[in-house]
Parts: sequence; C-alpha cells; structure tokens
Amino acid sequence: MSEPNGRRSELVAQAGKRDAEDPLAGKRSAFVLDDVVYLDGNSLGALPAAVPGRVADVVRRQWGRLRIRSWEESGWWTAPERIGDRIAPLVGAGPGQVVVGDSTSVNVFKALVAAVRLAGDGRDEIVVDATTFPTDGYIAGSAARLTGCTLRPVPPGEVASVLSGRTAAVLLNHVDYRTGRLHDLPGLTAAVRAAGAVAVWDLCHSAGALPVGLDEHGVDLAVGCTYKYLNGGPGAPAYLYVRAGLQDRFDSPLPGWNSHAEPFGMRGSYEPARGAVRGRVGTPDILSMLALEAALEVWDGVSVEAVRAKSLALTDFFLECVAEYVPAGRVESVTPLAHAERGSQVALRCPGAGDVMRRLVERGVVGDFRAPDILRFGFTPLYVGFADVERAGRVLGEVLTT
Amino acid sequence: MSEPNGRRSELVAQAGKRDAEDPLAGKRSAFVLDDVVYLDGNSLGALPAAVPGRVADVVRRQWGRLRIRSWEESGWWTAPERIGDRIAPLVGAGPGQVVVGDSTSVNVFKALVAAVRLAGDGRDEIVVDATTFPTDGYIAGSAARLTGCTLRPVPPGEVASVLSGRTAAVLLNHVDYRTGRLHDLPGLTAAVRAAGAVAVWDLCHSAGALPVGLDEHGVDLAVGCTYKYLNGGPGAPAYLYVRAGLQDRFDSPLPGWNSHAEPFGMRGSYEPARGAVRGRVGTPDILSMLALEAALEVWDGVSVEAVRAKSLALTDFFLECVAEYVPAGRVESVTPLAHAERGSQVALRCPGAGDVMRRLVERGVVGDFRAPDILRFGFTPLYVGFADVERAGRVLGEVLTT
Repeated sequence: MSEPNGRRSELVAQAGKRDAEDPLAGKRSAFVLDDVVYLDGNSLGALPAAVPGRVADVVRRQWGRLRIRSWEESGWWTAPERIGDRIAPLVGAGPGQVVVGDSTSVNVFKALVAAVRLAGDGRDEIVVDATTFPTDGYIAGSAARLTGCTLRPVPPGEVASVLSGRTAAVLLNHVDYRTGRLHDLPGLTAAVRAAGAVAVWDLCHSAGALPVGLDEHGVDLAVGCTYKYLNGGPGAPAYLYVRAGLQDRFDSPLPGWNSHAEPFGMRGSYEPARGAVRGRVGTPDILSMLALEAALEVWDGVSVEAVRAKSLALTDFFLECVAEYVPAGRVESVTPLAHAERGSQVALRCPGAGDVMRRLVERGVVGDFRAPDILRFGFTPLYVGFADVERAGRVLGEVLTT
Repeated sequence: MSEPNGRRSELVAQAGKRDAEDPLAGKRSAFVLDDVVYLDGNSLGALPAAVPGRVADVVRRQWGRLRIRSWEESGWWTAPERIGDRIAPLVGAGPGQVVVGDSTSVNVFKALVAAVRLAGDGRDEIVVDATTFPTDGYIAGSAARLTGCTLRPVPPGEVASVLSGRTAAVLLNHVDYRTGRLHDLPGLTAAVRAAGAVAVWDLCHSAGALPVGLDEHGVDLAVGCTYKYLNGGPGAPAYLYVRAGLQDRFDSPLPGWNSHAEPFGMRGSYEPARGAVRGRVGTPDILSMLALEAALEVWDGVSVEAVRAKSLALTDFFLECVAEYVPAGRVESVTPLAHAERGSQVALRCPGAGDVMRRLVERGVVGDFRAPDILRFGFTPLYVGFADVERAGRVLGEVLTT
C-alpha cells in the first residue's frame, strides 16, 4: 500500500498525538457526549454535565419549595446581570456591561434603535451586512421603519466605503453564519466610529470560540446568543453588551419594568436604571437562564486564547483531512484559509448537500445543512478532539465516494 | 364561650364541608405543596407535579442525547404554536390564534405597535389604563414614541369617554394587579371597536382564574403571562392572541426569522408567515417553554367555569373570615364586593402592610405586599382549599391582634 494509506495513517497518528497533548482535552468530561462526532455545536452546544442537576434543583427546590421567595433567596431577580458578568470575560468585557435575557432578535432590536438614538439627529441610514443571518436584516428593517431611517444592506467588504454623515447605525456579524468568515471587528468598529455612527456587533458565531475584545476595541453595542459555543441550551437567553461609557445614554425601545430604577416602586413614570440592567425588559425566564448559568461553569480556568489556538488547529486539520479523504472536486471550502479571516467552522459547498448531510448524520457525524448547497461543520474546542475531526473527514470521504 | 367562638367554629366546620364537596379538590394532588398556605399563585403559581420529570427528560434526553435533532424530533420548533393551542381554550380562543414566547412586556410591544398599524392613518393616540401594572404603561409609552402617537393614560372607568376618531389603540387590563378589580372586557371591547380603534387586553391576572371569552367578545389582540394562574414556572414565556380574521394584517414590529413564511429559506427579504406564527420572533426558550407545556396538563378535564365558581367562593369566604378574625378597622378591602367586578384575589389596605406580610409569611401564610400599603392574597382554585382560607384569615387576625 502506497502513498494514500501512508498519509492516512499519518493523519490518524497525528490526531492521537494532538489529542494527547491538548491542554483542553480534560474539558471534554465536563460534557455529556456519546460516540457521535458532534460538529453542530455552532448551532446547539452539547449538554454540560453540570446542567441536569442544577436544573432539577431550580425546579424542585427553588420553584417547588421556596416558590416566590426564590426571587430573592435564590438570586433569581439579579440573574440577568450576574450571568452577564460570567459571559463578560469571554467577550473581553469588564463587569457591569453585559445583561442576559430575551432572544438575539429582540436584543438586536434594542441595540439598533438605541444606536440610532445615540447617533443623534440628522443621521437617517442603518447599514446592515447584506450576508447577515436573516433575522438581523429583518429586525434592522423594522428598526429603520420605526425610527424613520433607510435600510442599506451592503456586503461586509463594502461597509467602510458607504459610511457617511447620514449613517446612524451599522449592524455587523463578527463571524458569517454561512461561510464562517471572521470579519475585522477592530477595523470596522474604528471606521464606523470615525464616521460618527454607532456599530452593533452580532457575536452569535464568535463568542466562546475566539477572542472578541469588546472593551479593547472600543465596541459600543453588541449582542449574541448563548446556545452555540456557550452551550446554554436550546433557546437559552441572549445577551446585550452596552459599553459602560454609553449606558447613561442608552435609550431602550423596550423599557420594561425590569429596567426601571425602582422596579418594585410600581411607578407610573419610567425612570431607567443605571448600568447594564437598563437593557432588561420583562421577567426573566428563570429555568432557561439558570441552566445557562450552570453551563457557563465549564469556562472556569479556560482562556479564550487557548480555545482559539485549538479551534484553528481543528479547522486546519479538518481541511487537511478533507483534502486527503474527499475525492477531488466534490467539495469546495467557502471558509477562508487565512486564520485572521476564519471563525470556528468550516463550510463546504457541495452539490446535493442536504442529502450528503443526512447520510453523514446516519453515520454518526453531525453537522448541518444550510440552503442551498452548504455543509456546515462547527468545531467546539472544549469537547471536539482531533480524532473526531479525522473521523469526520474520513466519513465525509466515504459518503462522497459511495 | 359565646358568640365569637361559635362563629369561628362555624367557619372551621364550613371550610371542612366545602373542601369535602369541592369538585376541584382532586386537582390539589397534581401540585407539589406543603403545609404552607400559598396565596401568592397570582404572582408565581405552585409547581405542578408533572414538571420535574418532564424537564429532566428535556434536558437529559432531548438536549443531551438527541441534541440538534430535537428541533424536529422532539417538536421544539413547533412548540410556540402547539402550547398556544393548549392555552387557547383557557382564554376562550379557538385554535391557531395564540402563540407562546417572549415576555409579557415584549408581547405588549408587538400587540400595541401592530394595533396602531391596524387602526390606520389619522389616528395618533394610544389610550392606556392609568392604573396598569407599570410595565404596560412604559411599553405603551415606547410604542407611542416609535409610532408617532401620543400616550393618554386614563382611569379604566373613563376609557369609554375619551375614545375618539384620534384613538388608535387602547391597552387595558382584564384584572387590576393591585386591587383585583375585574374590568368589563365585553363592554370595553365593543366601545373601542365602535370608536374604530383596536383594543389590546392584558390577561395576566385573569387567564386561568376566570372565563375570558376572547372569541366570544370579539377581542382583537391580547397578551398574558403564564407563571401566575397557569403555573408555568418563574419567568415562563408569555403569549400573544391575534384574532384569526386579523392575522393577515398583523404587522409585527419584531419580525424575527421565526415568523418568516420560510424560516430555513434564509432569505434576505422578510415575508411573514400566515397564522399565529406571525407573532413569533427569535428562537424559543425551550426549557422554560416545555416546562410550561407540562404544567398546562393540570387543566385536562377542568372547566374554567368551575374554576371561576370556586374562585368566587374562596374570595367570599376569605372576606368572611377576615371580618370575623381581624379586629375592626385594621384592614380595608380594596377589592370590589360585586362578583362581576372581582378577579381571583383580595387586596387589603393595611397600615404597615410590609411588616404584616413578613409576619404572615413567618407563620406559614404566603401572600405578597404591594407598595405602599396593600396586602395581596391570590386564590388559585386548583390547589387552594377552604381550610387554607380559614387558616389564612385566622393567622392574619392573630398577627393584627398581637
């Protein structure tokens, strides 16, 4: 047996060696896993082992026995900002700037309307990434309609060139949900700010997978979900970041009683609370939220830089395996090769991708399909190993050979 | 021992007799209860016994083992409308008109902005119940600001007299959260409609406690929470009712991808789905939502009319007990005596109410305190019995005597 098998043995050996040397390998046991290669953690993260017990306690003891007392005694009332502070270091934010609650879509709405108000009079255009996950564009359209702005969708590469004195807000994705392309957050943030506009960053596909550096790069507003790389569970509440220096001017379009300076004062007139709490709206969904809190414990002692290093090693290695196992011409990566432009997923364009993904899943390799022709594989460094990656590439090769 | 003790023995005997004859008494075992008299189910309903097992299955099997497959295989994706259809009969709605998700505040926002749009051009006033739970007023203020309307808070009794050709939308509470007063939903709905405006009803304090009759009374839009009389758990998702005949014109200010006609088409332009689904926004919070679904099973075989009959009997009996046990002049009921004007709570004005409630709780009688001077007791007919009521009145008397 000649070259191909030699190369394949080498990939297998390399996977074993890298797993043995992986400083994050120990984190795998903090998750409930089986013999499936789960490469869909960029859609729904795997279950952290601490969650079932915590949720059972929240339901049986906190709700069942303490009932209404838990709003104080079990810390329910302050959960949105407390859990926000657990997410903060993962996105490079100091404390008091992140609040958890509502869906990503609702937080995009809060942030965009607030951004238009921050930008001030005379600015009447909302620029949005034309390749965005659709909900961001729909919500941006609604925010534009309600604030009297015009919506201007442009490809991310052209954003800088369309900024003007009319630009009020710019909604950008840190990582493209389809291609896995990582956008230049520091550069675009600086450009938007130089134009006198306010950027809103959607971190759904980057938080928990790579350093974001919100404070360092002077980001004003950001939102993200918690059920992908943060493993918070299906539909776990999203979060909103409002830079500390802006909080006093953050003017929410959803001023619910939870963001009132004195929520139990039951006052007829609205007076916003100070701090990140101002981003809250109604009563927080405690079961989903406290499951997220338990899920975030897996990050104790983990540096996002180590996660990023492993993430790039995993996606590099997957591309190597694909090159080896998949017959030439059957797939084409739409994820950038340059590390500076890559998130933590690999998206392969593949004719018949829907059917191919179905067959992969049957063989124990779970990614997802994005219409019309994308196989999407997410790499979650806390629980995906190199042997998983080698197997995924190998099975993909088998599916595309048979 | 003379008159007082005779009367007291009679109340105790009456409680025993009524509990023995109560057709809903069997439902008590469907809840996790202890020896506390829990009269705060109008704030957070007690834990239904079916919930812990269901939640454990959702976490361990649906999320932990099936993971992403559960969006289809475990029915996650369709949960908002499926659970909406379980709530529908409790508020007198036919199927396909109720959708679950987001907080009450967020749903008030959707409904009010949509109401203004339905009312059409030339109407620029939002009327809101001046005694409303504050969040409704704050959100109404935001909806007014974003739609170019003026907010007009008026006492509920004056709503009919301020309706005019300028009125776009009217936000009303079915039951006042403080006083427990039941407002005239059929009459006010008809008056608002006759004025060419659109009413939005907040059912937080009525759904699950008394018949609402949304379809019967021609209500256009309604919202409500699920964690009070519906026992869905802390911060369980709220719901939105959009009358079937209006759904095609329901124009949501939060057009998230979950309400798209083809959510997985990932289209750049928004095309709203038909039906109640149009009220959805982002990814539903599955843990909280499926806990609610299990909680709603306690309603199997229960008629809302039977609940209402018991609710009125409980509140009547509580007022009798208070009259007997509490020294004259120490409390004053602000809840109407007329059944047609009473929800399922009794609110007593009482000097030092905060301290009194603290002492009641210490003695195992849990209600809540609403500033500045209200003791609030909610009566949940599915699990509160007449002996509980007698004990609550007796302990209140003890606290106010010593």
